Amino acid sequence: MANVAAKREISSAEGEELSREAKRAKGDDKNGEESGNEPEWENILSTFTTTSVLSDSAREKIMFLHGKMAGDEAVVVLEKTPVREDSLAELFRDSKLRLDMRNDIYSSYRLQAPPHLNEIKTTVVCPATEKHVKKYRRQESFLVEETGDDYRSVTLPYIQEQSLSLQWVYNILEKKAEAERVVYDDPDPEVGFVLLPDLKWDQKQVDDLYLIAIARQKDIKSLRDLSSEHLPLLHNIFHKGKAAILERYNLPASKLRVYLHYQPSYYHLHVHFTKLGHDAPGCGVERAHLLSDVIQNLQTDPQYYRTRTLWFPLRADDGLLGRFKEAGRL
Amino acid sequence: MANVAAKREISSAEGEELSREAKRAKGDDKNGEESGNEPEWENILSTFTTTSVLSDSAREKIMFLHGKMAGDEAVVVLEKTPVREDSLAELFRDSKLRLDMRNDIYSSYRLQAPPHLNEIKTTVVCPATEKHVKKYRRQESFLVEETGDDYRSVTLPYIQEQSLSLQWVYNILEKKAEAERVVYDDPDPEVGFVLLPDLKWDQKQVDDLYLIAIARQKDIKSLRDLSSEHLPLLHNIFHKGKAAILERYNLPASKLRVYLHYQPSYYHLHVHFTKLGHDAPGCGVERAHLLSDVIQNLQTDPQYYRTRTLWFPLRADDGLLGRFKEAGRL
Repeated sequence: MANVAAKREISSAEGEELSREAKRAKGDDKNGEESGNEPEWENILSTFTTTSVLSDSAREKIMFLHGKMAGDEAVVVLEKTPVREDSLAELFRDSKLRLDMRNDIYSSYRLQAPPHLNEIKTTVVCPATEKHVKKYRRQESFLVEETGDDYRSVTLPYIQEQSLSLQWVYNILEKKAEAERVVYDDPDPEVGFVLLPDLKWDQKQVDDLYLIAIARQKDIKSLRDLSSEHLPLLHNIFHKGKAAILERYNLPASKLRVYLHYQPSYYHLHVHFTKLGHDAPGCGVERAHLLSDVIQNLQTDPQYYRTRTLWFPLRADDGLLGRFKEAGRL
Repeated sequence: MANVAAKREISSAEGEELSREAKRAKGDDKNGEESGNEPEWENILSTFTTTSVLSDSAREKIMFLHGKMAGDEAVVVLEKTPVREDSLAELFRDSKLRLDMRNDIYSSYRLQAPPHLNEIKTTVVCPATEKHVKKYRRQESFLVEETGDDYRSVTLPYIQEQSLSLQWVYNILEKKAEAERVVYDDPDPEVGFVLLPDLKWDQKQVDDLYLIAIARQKDIKSLRDLSSEHLPLLHNIFHKGKAAILERYNLPASKLRVYLHYQPSYYHLHVHFTKLGHDAPGCGVERAHLLSDVIQNLQTDPQYYRTRTLWFPLRADDGLLGRFKEAGRL
């Protein structure tokens, strides 16, 4: 189950995922500082030659490299360290600055700090297997433009051919799995849904709250299938979902981001509830559609999502991207 | 963190001071890299004393400080720079490493790099007003629902009362500041715009590309002012902006996320261009509106953005949030 479920969400927020991976190697062994002796400086990396950048995140200041170290395959992770409050005075005293830009009251500089105040956390996996390399490799994404016609001629046939199993969804709806995780259950066959925590959320704190509402209706694949006839269902999920989260987590609707994905990661209608202020993977404007907006658009135009052009990112290895290329749409 | 990234929307400078500032900025530009001479090192920060950490993000390696610089209130933003692929060989050759942990095939080190390979982007706002300080202080956000009527009765009067200076925007449009940073300039008074890198982007790598297109028309405050008459302007920004980015950075349109903010951080029409896959601050569905979607909506309904309900997050200390509360809309 866990494996299938993990695949529910192959999202664009690789950075977060990856930095979590990077932490994995940390802290099991306290050979470093607690041994009493300052360890020797070494430069194991001087023998490292980079084959490729597997992935990186400019926002998180992290980079994953594949290469060779003394004949062995290796993965090297470089991650800048957070700015430290306890060394600010020393940083300001001992750094050099170069002016980049000045405009009105704003100016911007490049600051060169003493190396010991600005370390880079470096994790080495060596010898690394092909699995390590694959795990850290990022797939590029491309923004795809899909008209209503594209949906019917390219996307829909692809989805139908794939016919990916939704058994795990049905297991949840039928309480055959994850029953103990359900936060709210509305059994109505038309407007009912099951609300439960997303697997990405460890439920330890409300700061990164992430729940999913899964519709009981089985014939709605995605946003594209919605029309005004589904407004009662959408209203129900919106209002009862928010009420259930207020009751269980004491989090009011004004702190929630409620949205659908297009493309979704599985073709059974579901709605994401995440905490505002938490940059949940997949909450970007290129993939997320606010449920309140969806409702408003359907109220104005019952066929809005069947006729509109929609844009979404697809990873380079996504079969659907290949279909758009074949159709000359990229 | 999205809402605390270094952005400019407030300028307290007065006319006389501004012209002096503008001259100063111009003079400094000549000292920049293109003059052939390396600019002088300075250490303006040696006079900075920290009053408080306004906010920080360990994930993003960024810290916002409030303090005093030579008697003036100042805000200083320190942000580690992304790891750069083009200097990896030098980094590996010239750095020192200290072993922290070794376990099976995993080991972890602290790397001390030559300072010029590991700079810290430093942004200074000085003199800073209480508004700047407030803006960078970590604050909870609340999702606000704004009908077209709310806009006219609550939001618009608030914007007009604030009448925040847009002098820094006009400086850019008139080439009185940041002229050397301009990537593309279309001088047409109706559909023209200036495209330049956002201050959040250090321009060292395309991975976190972030540019802003600022419209030359001065009377469009935000998305709310747009109607179908602005379609030529929006089309022009969309197409020429993408073309300029392709030419300058070799990044095709399929790798770009092009959007407007609502609420924007300053009320002069501007469009964000960020790289797909980079989780740029403010690209979340609760605040960003894809330009392609905006164009499509205006084509269908010329008054779309004047009549629709829009949702957006406001920080707890935002005066506009207070107005919505007073109006019983929260």
